[in-house]
Amino acid sequence: MLDDHIAGIRLVDNHVHGYWLTSGDRGRFENGLNEANIEPLADFDSGFDTQLGFAVRAHCAPLLGLAEHVDPQTYWERRSELSEDQLARVFLPAAGVSDWLVDTGLPGDIAGLPEIADASGGEVGEIVRLEEVAEQAAACPGDYADAFRRILHQRTETAVATKSVLAYRGGFDGDLSQPDARDVAAAAARWRDAGGVRLTDRTLLRFGVHEALALGKPLQFHVGLGDRDCDLHRTNPMLLLELLRQSGTTPIVLLHCYPYEREAGYLAQAFNNVYLDVGLSINHLGARAEAFIERTLELAPFRKILYSSDAFGPVELPYLGSRLWRAGMAAVLAGFVARGQWSEADAIRVVDLIGRDNAVRVYGL
Amino acid sequence: MLDDHIAGIRLVDNHVHGYWLTSGDRGRFENGLNEANIEPLADFDSGFDTQLGFAVRAHCAPLLGLAEHVDPQTYWERRSELSEDQLARVFLPAAGVSDWLVDTGLPGDIAGLPEIADASGGEVGEIVRLEEVAEQAAACPGDYADAFRRILHQRTETAVATKSVLAYRGGFDGDLSQPDARDVAAAAARWRDAGGVRLTDRTLLRFGVHEALALGKPLQFHVGLGDRDCDLHRTNPMLLLELLRQSGTTPIVLLHCYPYEREAGYLAQAFNNVYLDVGLSINHLGARAEAFIERTLELAPFRKILYSSDAFGPVELPYLGSRLWRAGMAAVLAGFVARGQWSEADAIRVVDLIGRDNAVRVYGL
Amino acid sequence: MLDDHIAGIRLVDNHVHGYWLTSGDRGRFENGLNEANIEPLADFDSGFDTQLGFAVRAHCAPLLGLAEHVDPQTYWERRSELSEDQLARVFLPAAGVSDWLVDTGLPGDIAGLPEIADASGGEVGEIVRLEEVAEQAAACPGDYADAFRRILHQRTETAVATKSVLAYRGGFDGDLSQPDARDVAAAAARWRDAGGVRLTDRTLLRFGVHEALALGKPLQFHVGLGDRDCDLHRTNPMLLLELLRQSGTTPIVLLHCYPYEREAGYLAQAFNNVYLDVGLSINHLGARAEAFIERTLELAPFRKILYSSDAFGPVELPYLGSRLWRAGMAAVLAGFVARGQWSEADAIRVVDLIGRDNAVRVYGL
Repeated sequence: MLDDHIAGIRLVDNHVHGYWLTSGDRGRFENGLNEANIEPLADFDSGFDTQLGFAVRAHCAPLLGLAEHVDPQTYWERRSELSEDQLARVFLPAAGVSDWLVDTGLPGDIAGLPEIADASGGEVGEIVRLEEVAEQAAACPGDYADAFRRILHQRTETAVATKSVLAYRGGFDGDLSQPDARDVAAAAARWRDAGGVRLTDRTLLRFGVHEALALGKPLQFHVGLGDRDCDLHRTNPMLLLELLRQSGTTPIVLLHCYPYEREAGYLAQAFNNVYLDVGLSINHLGARAEAFIERTLELAPFRKILYSSDAFGPVELPYLGSRLWRAGMAAVLAGFVARGQWSEADAIRVVDLIGRDNAVRVYGL
Repeated sequence: MLDDHIAGIRLVDNHVHGYWLTSGDRGRFENGLNEANIEPLADFDSGFDTQLGFAVRAHCAPLLGLAEHVDPQTYWERRSELSEDQLARVFLPAAGVSDWLVDTGLPGDIAGLPEIADASGGEVGEIVRLEEVAEQAAACPGDYADAFRRILHQRTETAVATKSVLAYRGGFDGDLSQPDARDVAAAAARWRDAGGVRLTDRTLLRFGVHEALALGKPLQFHVGLGDRDCDLHRTNPMLLLELLRQSGTTPIVLLHCYPYEREAGYLAQAFNNVYLDVGLSINHLGARAEAFIERTLELAPFRKILYSSDAFGPVELPYLGSRLWRAGMAAVLAGFVARGQWSEADAIRVVDLIGRDNAVRVYGL
Repeated sequence: MLDDHIAGIRLVDNHVHGYWLTSGDRGRFENGLNEANIEPLADFDSGFDTQLGFAVRAHCAPLLGLAEHVDPQTYWERRSELSEDQLARVFLPAAGVSDWLVDTGLPGDIAGLPEIADASGGEVGEIVRLEEVAEQAAACPGDYADAFRRILHQRTETAVATKSVLAYRGGFDGDLSQPDARDVAAAAARWRDAGGVRLTDRTLLRFGVHEALALGKPLQFHVGLGDRDCDLHRTNPMLLLELLRQSGTTPIVLLHCYPYEREAGYLAQAFNNVYLDVGLSINHLGARAEAFIERTLELAPFRKILYSSDAFGPVELPYLGSRLWRAGMAAVLAGFVARGQWSEADAIRVVDLIGRDNAVRVYGL
């Protein structure tokens, strides 16, 4: 009954990126299974020899008509027979996702809202990156702060949320208070003089975050696991504590969070407006996703946890996130029920909250 | 046999606070199930939809004549039919605790030693908060250091331990060495001039800790999990390392410790006088208390781990701590035995050590 | 089949120290079961009442003709009937290790390469400590840098790897860039003037690390768990991030890693040249080694994880590391297979990679 419910629930994927639209070589695919490395994998290595690689072979192979755990070469050959669009029409509908909330801030030849909606048959919503808004404001004539606000309001009229990649632009440690208007103007002038590319100026990063807080739509933060361009230890969400104390009622979603998921769960308990997301980590942990899911079910209140895949690149990933989350939740919650700690009815209710209802409430879907 | 032993052992709860003496509304109760938040829970949230809330319904409901996992409304209504004192007479004896060591430093209309002794039928001992001693010394005429020492010695004549909430007064990072007498006098003068309320002066906090070390009675530190007034990441017990190196032979008990229980276990191995306590975390982790207990059974020597509930507020909590600890220990140790790693006789001995014997030895009960 | 394979695989122990050559008293033995404490264990304590102590009694006792879980006194008496050499001839062959890579930088009356080779019947390789090379260079006449390089090259002609204990000499935080030649000369002069003992000068430590990187042989770093002389929180491997970004292609092996094994796994994914070792932690975690092994199987690619015991002192430990690793891997991987996440064939392949093949590749055995 719990199993059936978990298998059947239509999820809201509250943070996902576009999948590749054009075919690539095996190197691209194997590197696409590695999150942290920014160089090509070493010759002796293989993206298939990871938890994620094993999970792709275990769970994605059958959707391509192959046996579970099929060897990498066979998987790759079969995958290569299909276009990325054809693959998307296999994997996206199979994810059982009703709503995809898409961070559109990544460059490259990747799917946007229309492609995702079309291939999946689901609804889509946009998440606007604050650092992209900043670049657009830098390219506008006139006052930077005015331009930022105008663009932010325009773009979020239809968008469901904003997102900050502050984690990649210096991390969370240090002052994150609202900057003075004069400092913002001076920093913007310097940045524009320097070309206005890739925002790393702390004042302008802080400005963007506080504008998003003032806007009131849910604000997502990349937290923890990402590529090695970010200093992982500077993305411990505890370093956001002062900011959270000033953040009012705007929902703040802590994304990914590995290996700080327990700290993030604490913050979700400590602040009425803080949420814990489980995306990215689940895919990359594969057979260990279950353990990660368990750790997110510690201090975080059950109305404060959200599902996402954080998929990017291989279109297997938006499916696999859903598959691993369902398998992990089924195993973990069945354990709680078997040990008499939870009732099955409660377990089913928590599945609904995390998989769907919390996101519907937070994002107003 | 292991199960029976765990069910039957009379525990020493080496750190507990008073329960509410007067009835309150449902908001108070639900907020009482949230440790970290210091604001009223949001309208969309419920203290019942947490691991602790589920644990209350699973394990406390039967003691009120209700079914396990009963719905929150029914639980609340049934609970409301009884006075807090009546509830105490249900839950405290059921905890199977022979000795309650009570931190009396929290304000409010809560039970003190006599009420706890009376309702539980157990023995009680007092734990004296150093920051409260400091406030009393500030209110005395004459030399601050003399007054502090006099009050500390008076109050600990019958008390079993001291406690520091340094975690809430700036955290553990920074110098924690013994301050110079002249600096103490100057800091005390400034603090008295400012009214002598809520000690946050670092010099005087350090002074209190070193006086407690000189006293020689066990000194408890709040570590990790608490409300958001403390900066969780500044309560990592590794930041106490320099202090521990200077701490001599006075037993130091690291309380709660989540999410730093593995670091605390390391310190319990590294220092003859350091102990690891499991309170607060177990209650708030509910179905995941088992996982927490497992992590405390890593590096900490078995003669250096202590049981507590750290209950405060709802009188369910001193019972629930015991219930979850017993269930968790039973499951974890049975697993060790089943895999041939431990003998059952050893498992029983470790239950005695952690549940009772270590505390009897450390506190001289 | 998986079980049989794990039981039969001949391991490479990629980091081990010498065992005691001469008999000692029970105090030495019990202290030898405690990693973190640098003082004699307290009278009330026992090295046997730890996960490691329980593991010794569970797994080593049968090799001495005793029952599993035999009481400590009996174990000690039986052990005392044999010389350390006789014990070595019991435990080393039973470890199922084909190659021992030995850090020879620890002082004391302990086994060196010949004794280990002789008692075990296995191959041996040397790991050269950079800080020992530095001391030898300080004792040489002439230019320090030249002497360091000459000794390093001489000693590593036959050695398989270098090792740094920077963790014990100030930790990883702070600048770890390559120092200027003039600064090295000045620092060396100061150190020689001061006697040239126990290197803690940051410039010279950095110099040694960068010389090892230039050499190109695998460079091992002590990370995390060790004795309390090192500041555990200053050995978080994330603090090596800047150095890793500059480290080129020289393999870097992060040893031990507890409680930072998840961070270390992240780094093993992020850098083509970074490896995760599981030694020391497994022994000291005993019944919980399984949980540690699981956590190392999260983000680290399977071609980037290495087995070691990091045994030192009691000759039970090089055996026990192997025993606990085999038991832990068997349980963890069987779980992955049972849940359909991994195939059994993959599990067997991962056992080979971690237990042997990765080390053969990295160290060129």
